[in-house]
Amino acid sequence: MKPQRKLPPFLDKPHEECGVLGIYEKEGNDVAKSLYYGLFALQHRGQASAGIAVNNNAEIRQIKDKGLVGEIFNVENLASLKGNIGVGHVRYAKEADEPRENAQPIVTRYCKGSLTLAHNGNILNSSALKDELLAKGAVFQSTSEIEVIMHLLAVARIHSHSVENAVKKVMTQIEGAYSMVIMSPRKLLAVRDPKGFRPLCIGKTQGGGYAISSESAGLDAMNAEFVRDVEPGEIVVIEQDKLTSHKDFCGKKPSLCIFEYIYFARPDSIIDGVGVYNTRIEIGKSLARAYPVDADIVIGVPDSGLNFAHGFSEESRIPFGDGLVRNRYTGRTFIRQTQAERDLAVNLKLNALRPNLEGKRVVLIDDSIVRGTTTANLIRLLKRNGAKEVHIRIGSPPFMWPCHFGTDIPDKKHLFAVKYPQEKMCAQLGADSLGFLSADEIKNIGLRNNFGYCDACFSGKYPVKV
Amino acid sequence: MKPQRKLPPFLDKPHEECGVLGIYEKEGNDVAKSLYYGLFALQHRGQASAGIAVNNNAEIRQIKDKGLVGEIFNVENLASLKGNIGVGHVRYAKEADEPRENAQPIVTRYCKGSLTLAHNGNILNSSALKDELLAKGAVFQSTSEIEVIMHLLAVARIHSHSVENAVKKVMTQIEGAYSMVIMSPRKLLAVRDPKGFRPLCIGKTQGGGYAISSESAGLDAMNAEFVRDVEPGEIVVIEQDKLTSHKDFCGKKPSLCIFEYIYFARPDSIIDGVGVYNTRIEIGKSLARAYPVDADIVIGVPDSGLNFAHGFSEESRIPFGDGLVRNRYTGRTFIRQTQAERDLAVNLKLNALRPNLEGKRVVLIDDSIVRGTTTANLIRLLKRNGAKEVHIRIGSPPFMWPCHFGTDIPDKKHLFAVKYPQEKMCAQLGADSLGFLSADEIKNIGLRNNFGYCDACFSGKYPVKV
Amino acid sequence: MKPQRKLPPFLDKPHEECGVLGIYEKEGNDVAKSLYYGLFALQHRGQASAGIAVNNNAEIRQIKDKGLVGEIFNVENLASLKGNIGVGHVRYAKEADEPRENAQPIVTRYCKGSLTLAHNGNILNSSALKDELLAKGAVFQSTSEIEVIMHLLAVARIHSHSVENAVKKVMTQIEGAYSMVIMSPRKLLAVRDPKGFRPLCIGKTQGGGYAISSESAGLDAMNAEFVRDVEPGEIVVIEQDKLTSHKDFCGKKPSLCIFEYIYFARPDSIIDGVGVYNTRIEIGKSLARAYPVDADIVIGVPDSGLNFAHGFSEESRIPFGDGLVRNRYTGRTFIRQTQAERDLAVNLKLNALRPNLEGKRVVLIDDSIVRGTTTANLIRLLKRNGAKEVHIRIGSPPFMWPCHFGTDIPDKKHLFAVKYPQEKMCAQLGADSLGFLSADEIKNIGLRNNFGYCDACFSGKYPVKV
Amino acid sequence: MKPQRKLPPFLDKPHEECGVLGIYEKEGNDVAKSLYYGLFALQHRGQASAGIAVNNNAEIRQIKDKGLVGEIFNVENLASLKGNIGVGHVRYAKEADEPRENAQPIVTRYCKGSLTLAHNGNILNSSALKDELLAKGAVFQSTSEIEVIMHLLAVARIHSHSVENAVKKVMTQIEGAYSMVIMSPRKLLAVRDPKGFRPLCIGKTQGGGYAISSESAGLDAMNAEFVRDVEPGEIVVIEQDKLTSHKDFCGKKPSLCIFEYIYFARPDSIIDGVGVYNTRIEIGKSLARAYPVDADIVIGVPDSGLNFAHGFSEESRIPFGDGLVRNRYTGRTFIRQTQAERDLAVNLKLNALRPNLEGKRVVLIDDSIVRGTTTANLIRLLKRNGAKEVHIRIGSPPFMWPCHFGTDIPDKKHLFAVKYPQEKMCAQLGADSLGFLSADEIKNIGLRNNFGYCDACFSGKYPVKV
Repeated sequence: MKPQRKLPPFLDKPHEECGVLGIYEKEGNDVAKSLYYGLFALQHRGQASAGIAVNNNAEIRQIKDKGLVGEIFNVENLASLKGNIGVGHVRYAKEADEPRENAQPIVTRYCKGSLTLAHNGNILNSSALKDELLAKGAVFQSTSEIEVIMHLLAVARIHSHSVENAVKKVMTQIEGAYSMVIMSPRKLLAVRDPKGFRPLCIGKTQGGGYAISSESAGLDAMNAEFVRDVEPGEIVVIEQDKLTSHKDFCGKKPSLCIFEYIYFARPDSIIDGVGVYNTRIEIGKSLARAYPVDADIVIGVPDSGLNFAHGFSEESRIPFGDGLVRNRYTGRTFIRQTQAERDLAVNLKLNALRPNLEGKRVVLIDDSIVRGTTTANLIRLLKRNGAKEVHIRIGSPPFMWPCHFGTDIPDKKHLFAVKYPQEKMCAQLGADSLGFLSADEIKNIGLRNNFGYCDACFSGKYPVKV
Repeated sequence: MKPQRKLPPFLDKPHEECGVLGIYEKEGNDVAKSLYYGLFALQHRGQASAGIAVNNNAEIRQIKDKGLVGEIFNVENLASLKGNIGVGHVRYAKEADEPRENAQPIVTRYCKGSLTLAHNGNILNSSALKDELLAKGAVFQSTSEIEVIMHLLAVARIHSHSVENAVKKVMTQIEGAYSMVIMSPRKLLAVRDPKGFRPLCIGKTQGGGYAISSESAGLDAMNAEFVRDVEPGEIVVIEQDKLTSHKDFCGKKPSLCIFEYIYFARPDSIIDGVGVYNTRIEIGKSLARAYPVDADIVIGVPDSGLNFAHGFSEESRIPFGDGLVRNRYTGRTFIRQTQAERDLAVNLKLNALRPNLEGKRVVLIDDSIVRGTTTANLIRLLKRNGAKEVHIRIGSPPFMWPCHFGTDIPDKKHLFAVKYPQEKMCAQLGADSLGFLSADEIKNIGLRNNFGYCDACFSGKYPVKV
Repeated sequence: MKPQRKLPPFLDKPHEECGVLGIYEKEGNDVAKSLYYGLFALQHRGQASAGIAVNNNAEIRQIKDKGLVGEIFNVENLASLKGNIGVGHVRYAKEADEPRENAQPIVTRYCKGSLTLAHNGNILNSSALKDELLAKGAVFQSTSEIEVIMHLLAVARIHSHSVENAVKKVMTQIEGAYSMVIMSPRKLLAVRDPKGFRPLCIGKTQGGGYAISSESAGLDAMNAEFVRDVEPGEIVVIEQDKLTSHKDFCGKKPSLCIFEYIYFARPDSIIDGVGVYNTRIEIGKSLARAYPVDADIVIGVPDSGLNFAHGFSEESRIPFGDGLVRNRYTGRTFIRQTQAERDLAVNLKLNALRPNLEGKRVVLIDDSIVRGTTTANLIRLLKRNGAKEVHIRIGSPPFMWPCHFGTDIPDKKHLFAVKYPQEKMCAQLGADSLGFLSADEIKNIGLRNNFGYCDACFSGKYPVKV
Repeated sequence: MKPQRKLPPFLDKPHEECGVLGIYEKEGNDVAKSLYYGLFALQHRGQASAGIAVNNNAEIRQIKDKGLVGEIFNVENLASLKGNIGVGHVRYAKEADEPRENAQPIVTRYCKGSLTLAHNGNILNSSALKDELLAKGAVFQSTSEIEVIMHLLAVARIHSHSVENAVKKVMTQIEGAYSMVIMSPRKLLAVRDPKGFRPLCIGKTQGGGYAISSESAGLDAMNAEFVRDVEPGEIVVIEQDKLTSHKDFCGKKPSLCIFEYIYFARPDSIIDGVGVYNTRIEIGKSLARAYPVDADIVIGVPDSGLNFAHGFSEESRIPFGDGLVRNRYTGRTFIRQTQAERDLAVNLKLNALRPNLEGKRVVLIDDSIVRGTTTANLIRLLKRNGAKEVHIRIGSPPFMWPCHFGTDIPDKKHLFAVKYPQEKMCAQLGADSLGFLSADEIKNIGLRNNFGYCDACFSGKYPVKV
């Protein structure tokens, strides 16, 4: 019935795979609408499916489907979601026709009643764990790794005094990246893997309750005040108006995904103590220092490239200007069939602003290059509209390696930086010069010295064995 | 998105809860379209959801959703269901908002690969079995009892040499009514409980393969030739073009639901050796013998009452005529809000044929009375259109007891025969006389002497402990 | 969005092209729901589009669309149709993709305010009239002939004292078949052409108002009591609770479409003083007298053939029985692509009832033969299910001529009776004998001697020059 | 079926009422897809309905509906629109439930065959003209003034040798604002009223044909090269590959809507010789000169306010920064019921970027203030996120007067500048200072001296009698 999802999306970027939310209000206060608002704020983390599950005195109601938050929920079905504890999820799908069963949260019944789970990350050993469970008689209804965690929790809970103890047991079994929200009949848990690959933070709601969100911008949307990040390895347990913390797995050197700062997260989010917007401004400045150029105007690829461009302009003193205008209406339903149409589609989504380009030497800033085709298209567009020179500056190092921690990057063979040796990249794009943020520069963009970050997609240095 | 299902449906009747299909063709022959045709033929057994799962070299594809067969499937999605083995299912939902997760077939992965199941019936001890499984760490994602069977099969399969052996093990654990189709990576199984509560039969397809269907009319629609019924207690295993039979659980006195003959099944189906149409004609004759009346015309409530009326007419020599015209277009979408509108709705669905009623003494035949409201409405309608007398003859005994074997009958407190003592029934309906088929008469309607039938909803005599 | 209409429909029949409704209640009483009920009852007269327009103190609101009545209207949009005067329409479309603009009623503004029109029939000289109007500067927005009438009314109204006088003027201009309902700011008119090709009748509502309907069954559905037919040539004007009649154009010999009795109209309708059901019974009897046969069972093609079959059985004393079971769920959404699938589709829509056929000599009664393909398919189906002989009896003469008065009959070259000489028809169908109702017999089926009927599609004798 | 349009839209702004497109390619080249791309580019000019009509050898096909371009068109229905001449339209609806009949283009048949029209503007004397037409017997099917033009054209064409002559005749009858595209069986016309209230321009397509568009950005999207603007008063006639111009009505002092530059048009459009982007930068500079302020950061309300903010920053040397982050996903489907939810909705659509606000004196630039509620909400949001001072600068004078030329401005009583005297505005908004662009400053923002502009909504000086 729904228009078919056209994946991969229009501008080729790596993809964050999920966003999670949790909320625990005082009894009698429905949380579905807050989760709905929060999911809107996290929609950029996943556009394939969305879901909300709420808990009303241990009775669970749930709505989830393929589609955008605004397509799935309406006044009527939100009103039917009665309950003061809740979990929300948005999901990115690697494949266009991923089954609806993979939508989250997943609600199951286990020995202690209902168990609801929403997850962002990637479990490295899920396949081996699944085989073990199958050998013991388990059945699986989806291809989602979250079902593996569900089974482990159910088994662990039999011999544990509490759901948090069961979680601890499971944390000794699973490896990889996971920022999860878990809802039991009476508790809401937030769990972050010991390396803290994916962000997760805690807020205080207007009603005196607690909220959990992948990003602080999700808390803003739920009208909740940011309290602090969930620590890597921490288990946070919320029950009534009490929040307790279990830090058995804390203390490791963290490996927060650096691409959250570069592209994934919203600029208005603050993650593990560092503002995303500020980081992007600093990246722009770094690029200006590392690759100075004599030019007339600095422009950014909307929307993400604009922050970088502002930083570059500030540092280089080359004036910032709008060079590309984004059409807000060319969404997923846009029809592109032939290659000519796809090329045209770039012009439709991003039109050039000729007055700012004609006869000018242009610095064009983008956050990353994945396949390179969009960048080449944009350079052609700018030159066709009068740009004398186009100098490309990219706010991240070249993508070279796959991610195993919850980011969807195309096959190595499609990666621009893998396909072309460094000296041929510029010519391949049709640019007049090209500069990538170097891996070294990353230490100068305002991140914390006393923290740790994963840049394996650029460096190949994986923080855990994969 | 879909128009909300308006349950209970228009004319109050008991409800069959499911229809199942299976098919195994030679490799390379897709079976989805055959299942689609078959589901159309079984649509009367369940209108809440429908699904098809097909097996292409052990890879399973599935489409299922809430709604009618014709709403769920289309040329495109049927074409995507590649595979030469398949399972189909239509489902009746007790509650209007039953979760989509309960739609069948259910496809799971267990230790030996995929496992697909479609079920018609009711497992008496599913709750106890579920508790045992939960205590061992199992998780459940729906409220459907079929998930319990899935778990049992997965556990049994670990210690069994074959899926059919696992099924045998499970048959020692589950009690109640079940006519199931099971698809493993390489086999298709048909399983019927030892009492044979629900029908299930085997056909031979044009392509030389085998088909399984709840009713023989389903085989006709799949262009398959009826071969024989699955015996109560039998496990039928189809692999390639070979059919083998396991009769470890055969030999008990059967308890086939007698209401299949009275109302559920299609008149063109033949169940356990007895034609449904013939039975209905015989019931009409029995009624004529048991409750003779001096009248001018015999009419039936369309569509099910017409067969009875023909039998009554034949035996009584009172001419048959059409007294009620059914509007084919007043489906589930019909809007009824107030009581006045509901009354009017009866007139819309069934209009009276005044020329056949005016000044006449009318015998009106229906298959059953559940709540009694529709019958009373119809009598009013007939009298308003000139009927001088209305004599009601019902092709089944009064409903008095709940069914535990897969039929949905309203709460006892809503049952007409429970609410009103026999002597007040006729007046309550506004009829001039009233006759129910007596439980004794059932032996005279053409059923088999050497078989067994369940009439617990009329007699309260349950064939197994409940 | 909507599933594409699959025309021509499943069983090939001629098509009635429209049904019309009107209602005038006391001020403050909304009529939309009554029209909605009435349209359900007239749905058989047109399934391509439906519409309702209501008048609230001269303010008109309207909802119309392609689709079935139950698909177009819902609680919300019906509630938005406030008004105590109203017009309803169902429409059959000759072409699958007829523009939505052709849906009726058509609401326009003319010199005296709003003008709403719903029409059933065919204006013979509409093309010439349109050309005249175009030459004077008129613009047309649809291909519907009703727009021509609208323009004529608007022009006529300038020089007329009342809308009824404008209608009289227009009746001198238009030729052909028209049963119309017209709503002006304060009046509701029912107009029937002088030959009365299409039916139209008047009822009295429970609320003391008046209702107009193509068939009396539409009045029943609106809970209105049948008062009388609109006379051929009559203009009925309803204003407040007053009904006046203008008979300037009455008195000609009528030419009511005889096919209304044979196939189009509901059996529970009474048209121009003759009951449709009775006529069908009499046709069955006539067939029995005209084409006696030694047979074991008389069966009818559901649903329309059943009445004929009952009549045939009564006259011939050959027992009636069900030989074909209709599947109620194979609607327009049924998928048929290849010829094999179309053949199979017949089996799905109509399954044979083998117990009534096996070894028997069968008389199969249908209302008409258009292309002949369905009949041939049914004969094959019956023989495959054991019928020893199949004798076809058709309740109408062979179709030979096009209809110019509002019925859609396929091109002459597709007509069975045109393609095959009489002596080859039986063999072509694969029947053992074949009998059509003769044109002469029509006088013996209970129609009125003092009335007139059009049978041009059989006889080629058109009642007006075409 | 479609989600109900929630009007008025989220951020209260005046509304452009339409966008028009035309294209004429060589025979055999379908134009539907080009129009589709062009409509995407003009979507900001109207989101209520959209339509395309194409001409294939004088046969017209059309698709139009309520909704966004991306919702209405798909691969299949675009492919069905065969034809080498075409017209496109997007429409803003003043009322949420405006009838579908008002969607454009409107296709009619008149004396010379088909006539298709798409219109942007407002005919001042349409009501009087309509009355005249009604008095002569015309009928109208919509409330759209475009139907009046259609009738006038049809009447005029009778006595004219060509459609362009008919247009000339009509231009002597109609008064007001109109930028129209007209398609006859063999010609495509572009017509702009003598005052040139609304923009309209001509392009040359890749295929050697001609294109017409409300804005030059529409030409870019159709891959057509901008040639020139249609002159105020000009009639452009395209036939085959020939473009001729009729300037009988040219030469008046133009009155182009100045709000096209301030808010309506895309920044990448060039209108009547002036770039929209440049104008907005200049407005920002003017504001900086007119209302200097000691501040730490200049921010704009996305998206339209950003250009102004860049200009302000450039002139004032106060650094530009992002202060508000726009959520791309909160479209029309966003649920807001209570006032609290509406306030929250502002936060969702625009979240504050605390790092850029905390402790800072902020200059916030927006294009206009209509009701003032959104501005007040934003100021609260900024202060809640740490802004020490918020200084509002508005890129247009205060709205005081209704527009009669195709812009939808709320009733006077709702206008902020009408409700509050100038000295109370700042306090009412909760701002620390407030400056509107003065009417005088408009001459310094880069517009043409030798042209004319309408600023009646600010000044009350209407360029024609209203």
